[in-house]
Amino acid sequence: MGSGTEKVSSNAPSDPSGDGRPDSWQRKNREILDAATRVFERKGYAAASIQEIADEVGILKGSLYHYIKTKEDLLFGVIRGVHEAGFGLIEEVDSGDGGPVEKLEAFIYRYVAHSIENRVVTQIFFHDFRFLSEERRESVLEQRDVYDKFVRRLISEGKEQGVIDPSIDVKVISMALFGMINWTYQWYRPDGGASPEHIAEQIAEFTLRGIRPADRR
Amino acid sequence: MGSGTEKVSSNAPSDPSGDGRPDSWQRKNREILDAATRVFERKGYAAASIQEIADEVGILKGSLYHYIKTKEDLLFGVIRGVHEAGFGLIEEVDSGDGGPVEKLEAFIYRYVAHSIENRVVTQIFFHDFRFLSEERRESVLEQRDVYDKFVRRLISEGKEQGVIDPSIDVKVISMALFGMINWTYQWYRPDGGASPEHIAEQIAEFTLRGIRPADRR
Repeated sequence: MGSGTEKVSSNAPSDPSGDGRPDSWQRKNREILDAATRVFERKGYAAASIQEIADEVGILKGSLYHYIKTKEDLLFGVIRGVHEAGFGLIEEVDSGDGGPVEKLEAFIYRYVAHSIENRVVTQIFFHDFRFLSEERRESVLEQRDVYDKFVRRLISEGKEQGVIDPSIDVKVISMALFGMINWTYQWYRPDGGASPEHIAEQIAEFTLRGIRPADRR
Repeated sequence: MGSGTEKVSSNAPSDPSGDGRPDSWQRKNREILDAATRVFERKGYAAASIQEIADEVGILKGSLYHYIKTKEDLLFGVIRGVHEAGFGLIEEVDSGDGGPVEKLEAFIYRYVAHSIENRVVTQIFFHDFRFLSEERRESVLEQRDVYDKFVRRLISEGKEQGVIDPSIDVKVISMALFGMINWTYQWYRPDGGASPEHIAEQIAEFTLRGIRPADRR
């Protein structure tokens, strides 16, 4: 990995991501996605213009087109980025010790914190997803399925093992859990008194009580 | 109340709402708000135009201005309408029998069904609220406070009476409950197999298990 601060010459580009793009391109691309995130948050995707995003980065509109072709490319890049970051979290939790209930607790605790940290992109995702092309919407929905399937699998396993209440509807309660977690972007305030860790703990404990069968409480 | 189909003469208007507007005005206003709801859902508020809403109603743009002055008036009307409908629900639940846990169960059950029924307006509310003027945002937030305060009061009473777990953070769990409920607009599908009643029952039962103290389970 590069130092992250060195100036990469265009004659000898490094290529840490292995996609054929030099390191300097990747850094600028990330900078553009961050700027697009801020503009989409402020104006909404539909009303935002490529010109405003170029201004936010501090480059000419023409230069922006070296990185993307359309405004939709930016929306897709922003949304894809936050989903991919969450995949590592699932892998870590799933490879850990413990049964389905312990994994569910660990996932909820960590995913609440992840969602609060990425609350601006979460907001853009849920507000502006509909503006993606059909092909890209499908690609993003496939990514979301990874989360849904993981939680549903854990709840199903827990029911089979008798550690989760048998009356629970796997699909409905999985969606209810994502509702509690994803909703945090609507109400969390950095100056609101409750830390992300406290919120994560409260939601994880509430969930554990809510899913346990009568004889395990 | 009028028959709902009669043509009201401008010389002798009925006035069922008591706000000085004739019945025919109220009906057309409701029709315009419903049309605006459909256009906002389709295009997003920011990209929607007054012309499209007039086309959706089937009247001239000039005629629309007899009912509203700006596009924002329509957004405000749509959002205010669904909140006011929910207030009756709170009053009914609160005037019923039972303690805080029973009232919470009844409220969650009925509010899930209400939210699913009004999911399009719920979506518009959460997507486009930011486009309201500051004064109107405050007015809408005061309306929302009625819901929050009701649920917080029930949880606090339940903790005092020892029927709700003492470790529960009233604010965080109240927001978590609204997350589960409000989120239904994101995933509920009329053809999805789960009825609004089944979803309401699952979420209410999960909540009851989640809030009960250890000695009451």
